[in-house]
Amino acid sequence: MEFFPDIEPIRYEGPDSDNHLSFRYYDENLVIADKTMKEHFRFAMAYWHSMCNAGGDPFGPGTRIFPWAVSSDPMENAKARLDAAFEFMTKMSIPFYCFHDRDMAPEGNSVKESEKNLKTLVDLALRKQADTGIKLLWGTANLFSNPRYMNGAATNPDFSVVCQAGAQVKAAIEATVALGGDSYVFWGGREGYSYLFNTNTAKELEHMGRFLKMARDYGRKIGFTGNYLIEPKPMEPSLHQYDFDASTVIGFLHKHGLEKDFKLNIESNHATLAGHSFAHELRFAADAGMLGGIDANYGEPMNGWDTDNFPTNLYEAIEAMIVVLESGGLGKGGFNFDAKLRRNSTDLEDLFIAHIAGMDTFARGLIIADKLVNEKRVIDFRDNRYLSFHEPDAMKFEKGELTIEDLHALALEKGEPELQSGKQELIESIINNAI
Amino acid sequence: MEFFPDIEPIRYEGPDSDNHLSFRYYDENLVIADKTMKEHFRFAMAYWHSMCNAGGDPFGPGTRIFPWAVSSDPMENAKARLDAAFEFMTKMSIPFYCFHDRDMAPEGNSVKESEKNLKTLVDLALRKQADTGIKLLWGTANLFSNPRYMNGAATNPDFSVVCQAGAQVKAAIEATVALGGDSYVFWGGREGYSYLFNTNTAKELEHMGRFLKMARDYGRKIGFTGNYLIEPKPMEPSLHQYDFDASTVIGFLHKHGLEKDFKLNIESNHATLAGHSFAHELRFAADAGMLGGIDANYGEPMNGWDTDNFPTNLYEAIEAMIVVLESGGLGKGGFNFDAKLRRNSTDLEDLFIAHIAGMDTFARGLIIADKLVNEKRVIDFRDNRYLSFHEPDAMKFEKGELTIEDLHALALEKGEPELQSGKQELIESIINNAI
Amino acid sequence: MEFFPDIEPIRYEGPDSDNHLSFRYYDENLVIADKTMKEHFRFAMAYWHSMCNAGGDPFGPGTRIFPWAVSSDPMENAKARLDAAFEFMTKMSIPFYCFHDRDMAPEGNSVKESEKNLKTLVDLALRKQADTGIKLLWGTANLFSNPRYMNGAATNPDFSVVCQAGAQVKAAIEATVALGGDSYVFWGGREGYSYLFNTNTAKELEHMGRFLKMARDYGRKIGFTGNYLIEPKPMEPSLHQYDFDASTVIGFLHKHGLEKDFKLNIESNHATLAGHSFAHELRFAADAGMLGGIDANYGEPMNGWDTDNFPTNLYEAIEAMIVVLESGGLGKGGFNFDAKLRRNSTDLEDLFIAHIAGMDTFARGLIIADKLVNEKRVIDFRDNRYLSFHEPDAMKFEKGELTIEDLHALALEKGEPELQSGKQELIESIINNAI
Amino acid sequence: MEFFPDIEPIRYEGPDSDNHLSFRYYDENLVIADKTMKEHFRFAMAYWHSMCNAGGDPFGPGTRIFPWAVSSDPMENAKARLDAAFEFMTKMSIPFYCFHDRDMAPEGNSVKESEKNLKTLVDLALRKQADTGIKLLWGTANLFSNPRYMNGAATNPDFSVVCQAGAQVKAAIEATVALGGDSYVFWGGREGYSYLFNTNTAKELEHMGRFLKMARDYGRKIGFTGNYLIEPKPMEPSLHQYDFDASTVIGFLHKHGLEKDFKLNIESNHATLAGHSFAHELRFAADAGMLGGIDANYGEPMNGWDTDNFPTNLYEAIEAMIVVLESGGLGKGGFNFDAKLRRNSTDLEDLFIAHIAGMDTFARGLIIADKLVNEKRVIDFRDNRYLSFHEPDAMKFEKGELTIEDLHALALEKGEPELQSGKQELIESIINNAI
Repeated sequence: MEFFPDIEPIRYEGPDSDNHLSFRYYDENLVIADKTMKEHFRFAMAYWHSMCNAGGDPFGPGTRIFPWAVSSDPMENAKARLDAAFEFMTKMSIPFYCFHDRDMAPEGNSVKESEKNLKTLVDLALRKQADTGIKLLWGTANLFSNPRYMNGAATNPDFSVVCQAGAQVKAAIEATVALGGDSYVFWGGREGYSYLFNTNTAKELEHMGRFLKMARDYGRKIGFTGNYLIEPKPMEPSLHQYDFDASTVIGFLHKHGLEKDFKLNIESNHATLAGHSFAHELRFAADAGMLGGIDANYGEPMNGWDTDNFPTNLYEAIEAMIVVLESGGLGKGGFNFDAKLRRNSTDLEDLFIAHIAGMDTFARGLIIADKLVNEKRVIDFRDNRYLSFHEPDAMKFEKGELTIEDLHALALEKGEPELQSGKQELIESIINNAI
Repeated sequence: MEFFPDIEPIRYEGPDSDNHLSFRYYDENLVIADKTMKEHFRFAMAYWHSMCNAGGDPFGPGTRIFPWAVSSDPMENAKARLDAAFEFMTKMSIPFYCFHDRDMAPEGNSVKESEKNLKTLVDLALRKQADTGIKLLWGTANLFSNPRYMNGAATNPDFSVVCQAGAQVKAAIEATVALGGDSYVFWGGREGYSYLFNTNTAKELEHMGRFLKMARDYGRKIGFTGNYLIEPKPMEPSLHQYDFDASTVIGFLHKHGLEKDFKLNIESNHATLAGHSFAHELRFAADAGMLGGIDANYGEPMNGWDTDNFPTNLYEAIEAMIVVLESGGLGKGGFNFDAKLRRNSTDLEDLFIAHIAGMDTFARGLIIADKLVNEKRVIDFRDNRYLSFHEPDAMKFEKGELTIEDLHALALEKGEPELQSGKQELIESIINNAI
Repeated sequence: MEFFPDIEPIRYEGPDSDNHLSFRYYDENLVIADKTMKEHFRFAMAYWHSMCNAGGDPFGPGTRIFPWAVSSDPMENAKARLDAAFEFMTKMSIPFYCFHDRDMAPEGNSVKESEKNLKTLVDLALRKQADTGIKLLWGTANLFSNPRYMNGAATNPDFSVVCQAGAQVKAAIEATVALGGDSYVFWGGREGYSYLFNTNTAKELEHMGRFLKMARDYGRKIGFTGNYLIEPKPMEPSLHQYDFDASTVIGFLHKHGLEKDFKLNIESNHATLAGHSFAHELRFAADAGMLGGIDANYGEPMNGWDTDNFPTNLYEAIEAMIVVLESGGLGKGGFNFDAKLRRNSTDLEDLFIAHIAGMDTFARGLIIADKLVNEKRVIDFRDNRYLSFHEPDAMKFEKGELTIEDLHALALEKGEPELQSGKQELIESIINNAI
Repeated sequence: MEFFPDIEPIRYEGPDSDNHLSFRYYDENLVIADKTMKEHFRFAMAYWHSMCNAGGDPFGPGTRIFPWAVSSDPMENAKARLDAAFEFMTKMSIPFYCFHDRDMAPEGNSVKESEKNLKTLVDLALRKQADTGIKLLWGTANLFSNPRYMNGAATNPDFSVVCQAGAQVKAAIEATVALGGDSYVFWGGREGYSYLFNTNTAKELEHMGRFLKMARDYGRKIGFTGNYLIEPKPMEPSLHQYDFDASTVIGFLHKHGLEKDFKLNIESNHATLAGHSFAHELRFAADAGMLGGIDANYGEPMNGWDTDNFPTNLYEAIEAMIVVLESGGLGKGGFNFDAKLRRNSTDLEDLFIAHIAGMDTFARGLIIADKLVNEKRVIDFRDNRYLSFHEPDAMKFEKGELTIEDLHALALEKGEPELQSGKQELIESIINNAI
């Protein structure tokens, strides 16, 4: 069955096209900075939003009627959904996808039944992958929807819930390995607290570290060689999530000796909920050598929850691509559209339009970022601000060969420094002119 | 000269007193949980706000005319200010104070002159301390007001500014040691960025780590045995400060091998600006064994900048004192009133009223927290949520002796867990009833 | 069938009771300021949260299994739910309830079927009311859950949706009148925009005014003599809601000539989402003579969405009750618990505990507010700040009998004014001491 | 004396220029939509930021040393500042300026002396205006810096402060009239409250209305025919400002019968502090026929105070210009750069660079907005969503000729409406492609 019969495969037609079902900037074979666009981005469809999210919110049920969700048998729907997903990705030329276990296959009445359901779908997906060349970017387990996880999964106060989480992660890692996924992701849904005064935070974080080590070890045992990723988010659904932001997670990973196997998956909307810019989180992950993937979306700046809009803000895309280019790319990671249609975007074509908008925005961001990095007008100004650190004394400082008494002596010798303008307005202007 | 001639020493008169210049709850000799209130709190006056802040804001100059700030000679004012400070603390029975170098002595026209000014005042302060028994809780250097620090101090792109900062910290540590301070504090004023795209964040943070080690080593060399403290703040004056919150700072300290010498000084208003509750930041510092001090104030929840109100919110005080009591107290740390009078609180007595309000609020917080901890109705409920971790399998889990396959087997064996209510509304109710 | 067989009716047992299923402060017959507590508050149960909300959120389905929601026939569930609601209110001594049409009766497959369902339940509810003495505080129509309202109801760009909304409001007003409701409420769910650039805001607001007039006229025609209420909320589910806050709604009502029939229903969590304190919104509604009701809840200050916690913050309760007492009470309005249990509060008793917590919090708020208003230490200070307006010139100013040239002449004559302290810290301290 | 000797007049050189001291998009004579760019924007320099703001913030004094602020005589500085201002505007081709009384002339020791100072400078400015052709866009009085205004100006609890404010506004209106200003602005600095419980908000707002009427009447009496403008801002310096946002101010103006003489001056950063987008505030002012001027700046989305960055965000500029074009322009209003250099932008040329950046951003915004409005792809989609309101029944609805019973009958007749996609992602995409 064809689910999008009226939609032709989306083609690159250039900026002047007035076909709203074409790419204007995303040209997958265009080479920028020694790689094709396809290689730079490794775009992925998010199974949960694009295939499962009918537009519901806390104030009402979904508005979109999916032709792949009309059966009364959940497994039939799951199979139809898989067909729809691969048709959609093929028509969009999206080379990867990401999924939670429960997106792909329905939870059963027991651990065994859930595992069987998942296995059935994984086998079908493998065939789909072979047929289309589409690959799995990453897999993950949904450890937050089932009521049993209402107090957390790995951090649940009840050990028997931790066991359930373990069983589920085991199966999800197996599925990821079977499907050849490049990464395995942990988003800490309800790993956090809704109330500080009924929670032993130290104990729960200790459990989380322990759990992640077990997950890592199991993956390595069964042959998983990709990255494990943690996706920071400060709040929602919990009042406070343990994986608050990049710096918090980096500190946690080092504390638990996980820094070699784990990297970060940075999401724009999670960044802004934490009081950071998207670029900030990317930069701090990259500075730590831990930028492992990107969840590409956009948060409404006036709303204090995860709105997960499709990314159409050029500034965010340019800034993100500067960081990505300067840090040498995402490696095995990619750009996953963890974004949902607005509740009132109810035409079937809207899913295509939204993904096109996101891909074009990032493609254009890449082109402009490459221009800025190559022309070096921004980069050189930044680097030149630190020229004084090429002086011998400053180099000693950087190596830890000076004492504070040495600094004192140098201060007396050098006298009052001259002020050096940061020239922020100039750089903002250069970036604007590059658009 | 007496600066507050109309104000008698403030005495404890009990809850029923209608003398607004008396303590209703703070009874310094009252023993709670084996320590006097005086010992629990080690309250400190913040020199900068209480003695220097005339009420100015970005929209207008100060409104308070300090009788100790009327000379045209800055050194004369500094001496008068010192007298006023000790008179104020004596009348308030506040046993400690905290200061920046520039609060106590004016900056001179050269490093040498600044050092001389500071030395003069330190000598006078020593005499004052001997006369009154008042002690120094902590000292610090103002590395943010002088224009030279507009791009940061230890993280300035210009090495000659780093040298100036070094010279200033050297003198401030010497002053702190001379005055017998229990801690030395770093608040990272402009250590951060105002624009990400003219900043090399990795390099600047490397410099910051380096600088702190030098400061630590110098202090240890000259005999400082107290704690170094870092005070997290997410933003303001910078767009983004490196010491964003407790978790960020804890990760940074570990990365740079500073975790043995450094602890955290947690401020309520900084916590809320970072999207955390005061109690959250205290708890996370305490969980890491790094709670070294408290800046006691309160931020207007509707305003997005550091309003630094005097702390009068009982809930914050109760929650803070639960964490402090459970973590065994602040040790050499104390409660510093980093709080300022509202701009339109212009009566001389308002400074007394505000400190009384803060001390009474925390005293009452201590009494109630002690009740809650002793009755254990809150604590026991929390602890009992984790009872399942006393089972043998769970204890193995905690010791790292289980694999995820073991969890899987246990999940099959144990079956679907029962839901356990978090009972947040009940605990909130118990806390209310303890007030 | 009894739905809460293990719960005895909740009684007032005083502050020292350690029965968590008793009132400690809410004593319905206690007279404060010439009215019983019961009369002051007119507490109401919110049908939607207390009877319908199983704890679902955007990240997972509900966690609470209601014994009144186990049938496969929606009408059977609706009848059982009605029984449960009246059993709950009776055991709680809650004298009122509030409902949306769809809370009480399920939507049918047509307008007619929906009306029939509602009528059936209204008849049953009438009998319940007669049996128990419990009354309807207000009714309303759910104009936001059904997908047809995804672009708004009265403000929908499609006139046929406006018609549907009209039909639904007609039936909901009829139900409210039949049940003797004191008010009829409009909460503007999706009346707002999700995107400014596909929306004609002027036209939509014109339609909203028109629609409200029609609703008002119909109610008056069929004998409704109560208040119409609008409940401000700034955002969520829409990006931006038209009824942003009290001031916005007051301006709107005047513009459309609705100010005689409409008042405001103020919710704490909506106030804080709009950047106001709860007390601010209450005061501005009261200043305009338009305070018509209260939705009593509490928003997590660190979360940017409508968390709808049960109200347990004493400060908010005290401040609210000062405004309510000073403005002469809520008249036909009341305090509706528009609050939901935390998702992980899954014990059946938690619903009782949460309502007790809310009622006790407000009861205590009333006792303290009454003390503050009677002792007048806060009120008198406030009023005395304006004493200069009793001077003859100032009275002329207030009457509009002075020109700016007169002010100029008076300025020259009076000279530089003396500063008058606002004494905020003192008042905060007095309020604390009254607790 | 020439203050910017190294800066040549800034010229339009087109998008490909690499001269950072040239315009790339702002071509003052280019005609767009029947007007030159110069006529569209009527750009103005803000005297206070550009000439007076040396870069100070709450954590340190200014960093910029102005060559026009080196005398010990405030009047000499004021005269030099005036020269610098006109040199700057001339070199920038900025045709207008805006000022507070105290920006132009220092406050004296008495009302009379202040008036004399102002008069002296106004006479000099008149000559400057004649020499250069530069005009006054608007004047205003600084009613917030002097400590006397710490509790408000027109809303001060002390009538003698209200008199001072009256005297000051009288002189500022006279200066504005003398200089031929097109508008006179009220920004309600401290008209609001820092604490609700020592404030009689109803009384203060009554005084504010009274005061504005007196100001209006005096202006009209002495021949002022321009607009009075109120500039909304939600908070800062006060905890809460009375002129919270556009809707609040519009309601206030109607209540006090001021809606014929007063319009709104909308600032981007004030909009976002109030939880609105810039475009929202512009649209709501325009919908009410009250868009009278714009303060062009940009607020850091992650910081909760008025950062007043120079406007370089293209999206904000495009959206603003769509609203301005659709509402027929600003009339006698203009775009005032109420923006300040970052504290660390210390080169003299930075002031030019920043204004160029702002002017180019809006020029480009105008070009793109004009394209979008003319192509109508955005506008038509929006308008077509409301096509159903051209039906006869819907037209009756709009005229108030239907009852809710009629809507009910129509609902039965029309049946369930079809869902109409809002197509937000498509429109965002079209706007992106127009850049």
